[in-house]
Amino acid sequence: MNDLTVTDVMNELIGSHGVWYLVGAMLVFFMQCGFAMVEAGFTRAKNAGNIIMKNLMDFCIGTAVFLPLGFGLIYGTDLGGFIGKPTETIFTDFSGTDTFAFFFNLVFCATTATIVSGAMAERTKFLSYCVYSAVISAVIYPIEAHWAWGGGWLTQERFGVVFHDFAGSALIHMVGGLSALIGAAILGPRLGKYKRDKDGKVIQVNAFPGHSITIGALGVFILWFAWYGFNGAAASSAKQLADILTTTTIAPAVATLVCMIFTWIKYGKPDVSMCLNASLAGLVAITAPCDVVDAAGATAIGAVSGVLVVFGVWFTDNVLHVDDPVGAVAVHFCNGLWGTLACGLFDTTTGVFYGGGFGQLAYQSIGALAILAWTAATISLTFFIIKKTIGLRASKEEEIKGLDITEHGLLTAYSGFAMLNEAIEYDPEEIKGLEDIDTAVPVKNYALNKDNPDKLTKLVAVFREEKLGEFISAMEAIDITGITVTNVQGCGALKRQTHYYRGAKITPKLHPKIKAEIVVSKIPVNTVVNTARKSLYTGNVGDGKIFIYDVEDVVRVRTGAQGYDALQDEE
Amino acid sequence: MNDLTVTDVMNELIGSHGVWYLVGAMLVFFMQCGFAMVEAGFTRAKNAGNIIMKNLMDFCIGTAVFLPLGFGLIYGTDLGGFIGKPTETIFTDFSGTDTFAFFFNLVFCATTATIVSGAMAERTKFLSYCVYSAVISAVIYPIEAHWAWGGGWLTQERFGVVFHDFAGSALIHMVGGLSALIGAAILGPRLGKYKRDKDGKVIQVNAFPGHSITIGALGVFILWFAWYGFNGAAASSAKQLADILTTTTIAPAVATLVCMIFTWIKYGKPDVSMCLNASLAGLVAITAPCDVVDAAGATAIGAVSGVLVVFGVWFTDNVLHVDDPVGAVAVHFCNGLWGTLACGLFDTTTGVFYGGGFGQLAYQSIGALAILAWTAATISLTFFIIKKTIGLRASKEEEIKGLDITEHGLLTAYSGFAMLNEAIEYDPEEIKGLEDIDTAVPVKNYALNKDNPDKLTKLVAVFREEKLGEFISAMEAIDITGITVTNVQGCGALKRQTHYYRGAKITPKLHPKIKAEIVVSKIPVNTVVNTARKSLYTGNVGDGKIFIYDVEDVVRVRTGAQGYDALQDEE
Amino acid sequence: MNDLTVTDVMNELIGSHGVWYLVGAMLVFFMQCGFAMVEAGFTRAKNAGNIIMKNLMDFCIGTAVFLPLGFGLIYGTDLGGFIGKPTETIFTDFSGTDTFAFFFNLVFCATTATIVSGAMAERTKFLSYCVYSAVISAVIYPIEAHWAWGGGWLTQERFGVVFHDFAGSALIHMVGGLSALIGAAILGPRLGKYKRDKDGKVIQVNAFPGHSITIGALGVFILWFAWYGFNGAAASSAKQLADILTTTTIAPAVATLVCMIFTWIKYGKPDVSMCLNASLAGLVAITAPCDVVDAAGATAIGAVSGVLVVFGVWFTDNVLHVDDPVGAVAVHFCNGLWGTLACGLFDTTTGVFYGGGFGQLAYQSIGALAILAWTAATISLTFFIIKKTIGLRASKEEEIKGLDITEHGLLTAYSGFAMLNEAIEYDPEEIKGLEDIDTAVPVKNYALNKDNPDKLTKLVAVFREEKLGEFISAMEAIDITGITVTNVQGCGALKRQTHYYRGAKITPKLHPKIKAEIVVSKIPVNTVVNTARKSLYTGNVGDGKIFIYDVEDVVRVRTGAQGYDALQDEE
Repeated sequence: MNDLTVTDVMNELIGSHGVWYLVGAMLVFFMQCGFAMVEAGFTRAKNAGNIIMKNLMDFCIGTAVFLPLGFGLIYGTDLGGFIGKPTETIFTDFSGTDTFAFFFNLVFCATTATIVSGAMAERTKFLSYCVYSAVISAVIYPIEAHWAWGGGWLTQERFGVVFHDFAGSALIHMVGGLSALIGAAILGPRLGKYKRDKDGKVIQVNAFPGHSITIGALGVFILWFAWYGFNGAAASSAKQLADILTTTTIAPAVATLVCMIFTWIKYGKPDVSMCLNASLAGLVAITAPCDVVDAAGATAIGAVSGVLVVFGVWFTDNVLHVDDPVGAVAVHFCNGLWGTLACGLFDTTTGVFYGGGFGQLAYQSIGALAILAWTAATISLTFFIIKKTIGLRASKEEEIKGLDITEHGLLTAYSGFAMLNEAIEYDPEEIKGLEDIDTAVPVKNYALNKDNPDKLTKLVAVFREEKLGEFISAMEAIDITGITVTNVQGCGALKRQTHYYRGAKITPKLHPKIKAEIVVSKIPVNTVVNTARKSLYTGNVGDGKIFIYDVEDVVRVRTGAQGYDALQDEE
Repeated sequence: MNDLTVTDVMNELIGSHGVWYLVGAMLVFFMQCGFAMVEAGFTRAKNAGNIIMKNLMDFCIGTAVFLPLGFGLIYGTDLGGFIGKPTETIFTDFSGTDTFAFFFNLVFCATTATIVSGAMAERTKFLSYCVYSAVISAVIYPIEAHWAWGGGWLTQERFGVVFHDFAGSALIHMVGGLSALIGAAILGPRLGKYKRDKDGKVIQVNAFPGHSITIGALGVFILWFAWYGFNGAAASSAKQLADILTTTTIAPAVATLVCMIFTWIKYGKPDVSMCLNASLAGLVAITAPCDVVDAAGATAIGAVSGVLVVFGVWFTDNVLHVDDPVGAVAVHFCNGLWGTLACGLFDTTTGVFYGGGFGQLAYQSIGALAILAWTAATISLTFFIIKKTIGLRASKEEEIKGLDITEHGLLTAYSGFAMLNEAIEYDPEEIKGLEDIDTAVPVKNYALNKDNPDKLTKLVAVFREEKLGEFISAMEAIDITGITVTNVQGCGALKRQTHYYRGAKITPKLHPKIKAEIVVSKIPVNTVVNTARKSLYTGNVGDGKIFIYDVEDVVRVRTGAQGYDALQDEE
Repeated sequence: MNDLTVTDVMNELIGSHGVWYLVGAMLVFFMQCGFAMVEAGFTRAKNAGNIIMKNLMDFCIGTAVFLPLGFGLIYGTDLGGFIGKPTETIFTDFSGTDTFAFFFNLVFCATTATIVSGAMAERTKFLSYCVYSAVISAVIYPIEAHWAWGGGWLTQERFGVVFHDFAGSALIHMVGGLSALIGAAILGPRLGKYKRDKDGKVIQVNAFPGHSITIGALGVFILWFAWYGFNGAAASSAKQLADILTTTTIAPAVATLVCMIFTWIKYGKPDVSMCLNASLAGLVAITAPCDVVDAAGATAIGAVSGVLVVFGVWFTDNVLHVDDPVGAVAVHFCNGLWGTLACGLFDTTTGVFYGGGFGQLAYQSIGALAILAWTAATISLTFFIIKKTIGLRASKEEEIKGLDITEHGLLTAYSGFAMLNEAIEYDPEEIKGLEDIDTAVPVKNYALNKDNPDKLTKLVAVFREEKLGEFISAMEAIDITGITVTNVQGCGALKRQTHYYRGAKITPKLHPKIKAEIVVSKIPVNTVVNTARKSLYTGNVGDGKIFIYDVEDVVRVRTGAQGYDALQDEE
């Protein structure tokens, strides 16, 4: 150590062979935790284990393929500006390998892969996700990353500048976001997400709220924290790092604030989960230009992000009708592209608004287009091949039951907590094939209280969870509106299925069911029973029962009305 | 880089222009995550989205106001020892700005602001919180922080010493804690928190347990971890950092241990959430003296904190009757003050117990008093103006329904999870104005089983969640004690309200309701119905219904008694 | 600072007196958060507060005993290779104490202690855990850690090598894991975990799924992130750190991937929680050799870990019948041992597979055996003394009710969330003493609908939560299979108990109960009532009631059958 020079020590501290470079990369790894929490929190409880597993496995599979292949494609000797030459040095000469570069590039690569899982959540086959994940980490990301970060063609000067993407607005987020968009589009929306008319036109867009905003927010805070590593790791001096931390703070803060004000005006109330998305949007947008803009630039970039994310979510959902459960397209694709172009506008040396002319903006546009084209082509091909071979989407049964139980044999990620049902009304078309309603349930004429039309009768139906939406609609169609719904557990003669939890068998005796209670007077019990049966019928064991009881009387609390009058609709 | 000197490299590593300084500040940012989790976990589920939003926005709003104003007030050229001169350098000369200082001071500033949200949780208007947040970050904190950290009057030598607050026991925590106390006092307690007699004297203090101790504990662990950055960031050598980490570990560990023993003795069992608070209390107290005390001093400071936090929680709740849902006053105010004074006692050079005389203690007291006076005056004025203009407190309806739905249109932060009701008994006085019970519900004489007093009858009332406490009290008043309560969901003709979730409309069909089942024999059904109506009535649509059924028989499991006898109270 | 040399600055940066060393140690502290979340998530909700408290207190108690005793035993002047000489320097000469070493060794020590809490979760007396925790941190760990890390006998050259355990596969994880195994074995399994025949042979192994896989996964991600500090803190150069981060990434990634494939093949589906365990297993195994293996070695070590963890969980549960709720034995013991031996196989200089001969492997084996022997002897003695004095295990009542309420007076860690019941069938033998069923409940002959055998009757039993498993079995024994179970809350005349939450009294009015509804036709109501009473009886107030109602009719949804026919089992 006696031969060390000051420069050597400096290099040990910061820059691509320094300790801070590695600490920053560790923080980038921690983003896996943030993404897992965001995606789990913003989707439904029945898929929580699956989404966590996907986030865990894309890192692990990514590592396994990046080691022999991806790393060389980014970082190996440049071949014609397009790819790096794969190398096996890491296996043959570990101490001679640039392990700084390996660890750093691996954690960035894994970030790209993980962005997609949120957009494709709740309906993608697990095996297919594993395959996708291997392809993007082994080939798609490494090649385009080589262009700008591995000595490829985007590092060549053009218009007096080079393509600028400091930490990956384009190379990571835009690529992940576009893959998310294409993946979600090919996959199709979750069942019940869009209601369509006969011509297939979407006439209603439904929201499926996430099962834990707290966990989602935890993920966002972790991501923001870790983003200081993401954007800062490659800083070449402490002062540059301080500048980067400053811009990386201003942009998301302004984005979140603008989003709060914007949603307050647009929707009447400041939207919590959209603001959480806006923080991420600001972070994504500042990622490319974080080292070349000033506080004013960061403010402007953040302000645009705060509106862009709301627009992106709306556009994806309401115009494209692509179902993106966590907003990955709006956050990563829209803002990744925006951040890439923003370099051309706000770079304090080369940006349009700083008198730098249009050269940077032009090169940013060319680079973005090339990366988009490469990504679109390769990821579409990947998803297409997966779709045609092992299939991309879980079956309808699997989706409705949830991927935790069907893909992983995990009864629930929240054992011990009661779950409220969803009451999603599926479009008959989209669940076609699951059951055949009309032909299968002949109307029976039950001899039930038709002689005494004033008699009060209680009907109690106990049935499958997923039928609730349909049941309510059927009841409303015969003018019944007072329904009391309870989450119960049925212990029936249903053939008991065995699952494994950590290798131990679980044969659950209790299954979640819905109990719906209705009291009728003039509406014939016969009608109610037949209508209920029709809506609840699937033809499988476990369709449930309807119990009929006598009711002595009923009193409405507010009016004090009794009997028939108590049951009538209030204004 | 060739012109670097050894000292330059050292400065790049540690101290106010070094990488560690920035990493420490990143950890301080991560405290926002810790605070959000602590405050969300220790409050009720119906306000989880709101508390997260407040924590997110105080950082974002703080950044937006600190950028043009607050930063200059702390760090600008000193004007008469009282304030710094605001400056716009960061916008006009970014590369010439001390962005180290900006990022560092910003994250500390945001910590001050966020402390208050916990104490004012579950009843503060969101807009008002945004305004408060802007004021404390733009003006109140920056000015007092300037006194000690920006070259102000507390940096002048007096009694042979200077005021010492290494990382902010006084400047951050005591200020945040006092603001929390004043805010919570002006705001008033949550509905149902204190039961008062006719003279307004509090005769009962109720506990509202937090909805997730796990999430709260997560927050505490994150805060402790991040506190190593909070206390250590400004270290000027690695050895000083090591010393700081040691004292910053000993104090909270001892505080937690002492609190465990103390609550074990005082309450009979070691209290989980109080111990979590004690960890934070120890951290707050060691913050000012972390660099000037030894292991013995840290032990003593921690031991006092462990008792002080229990006392502070008790005193705030039982003597002041200020409702502080998360213990912010006890943790930050009491222990912030304690830590500030502790410098005067345990400083190994100037402390009373180390033969340093009373100079340091005197200066610490003067500084603390001045900071308290400044904070009390400005924050009271701030809250007063907010109260008189836009109002400080959410309406009673909003508070009872929860701020997630009323402030943010978020139906629930936990979609898919069933929530247990609270059964809070509100004092009729405190919810006056919400409903008029006695005049509005004339007793009706229902012709119900009065001829057959031995007949068993089941009454099933389905009603609003928030009425449960009142309903139980009303039933107990007529000697009914056997009530079975179920969380159900009503699907009624209630006018359906539309909310937005990420811009998509949600019109929930199902609303949480309570079903209460009672079986009576000798108690006249008429009495039960009228008493129930009186307790459930609000005069609005959705008050619910009472169903009456015949019961064949009832058997008590333990005694085997049947019918009337089975319904009688057990000893 | 002018007298600094380049080497001084380098030492400030990395190595045992550098900033990175301290940052790494901070990350090791953060592992406490990871462990708390893993253990809370993978156990049941009724013990969440208790497990968090144990994790919090083992660090705090650890600090309190490590300060005066443990630190000296590791780090003091070596006495005969076996122990260090305790010292009080830290109290008497703080600035002269190596606080780097203190903080670093403390956080590693606390990791050892915390591993045990998971394996002994859900049934260990809290006080006993505190005592155990003090002993391991004060004596057991410091002494064996001294052997290899404090200048003890394992640092002496033998076979041309020294014992190698870079970051603690043996010293930390194997010791923690063996203590976990011995502790869990002495403690015995949780009630209901193993079903035994008359000879005591286990005939069924039941799974108790964790209450939040999301929280558990959060813990795993935090642990993985923090492990970069755990393994990397002691690096002596940036390049060595980069190498360590690389091996520390490859091993867990490969382990997780192999585990996914292995469970997919073995159990038919990729198991989420086992894969989460596999990540930890890979991290544990790479801990000792992280600095001396290359990418190929890390891959091989991880691959073995991925299978070993599945085998370890299976072996512990199905062969040893030791109940380890979180898999601590498989993760820490099996893989700690594996990692220790793996140094002898894959060390690129001295490993068997790298032509280094068997010297290293021999020394690793000797070291491992010595550490295992020391740990086994001392921890067994510790648990034995605790068992014989204050007792090791919570009472059966406490275990069934959950340790949150019984040990800490915490009604629930999740106030506001409804909990689903568990329906565990306890073996009559293992809950003997809790109640005496047969003698206490004489069969009564109730005069209930025996005249009309075709009449439909509904029986509604409301009873204690913990009786559900038994109730279902009893009903099945009399051929009743259609049971609807609802989680309700009873408000009865039960003597109300007072608990403390943060010092405020809580006297809950509502208690969780189970409501089970059955409709029968030919089965005599009398039989049902008597059978139900027998299964529900404990002889204490609060055993519940059985209500009997008339049913008009019942219709089966699928078949349309009415009355008696509708109630018959489906195929």
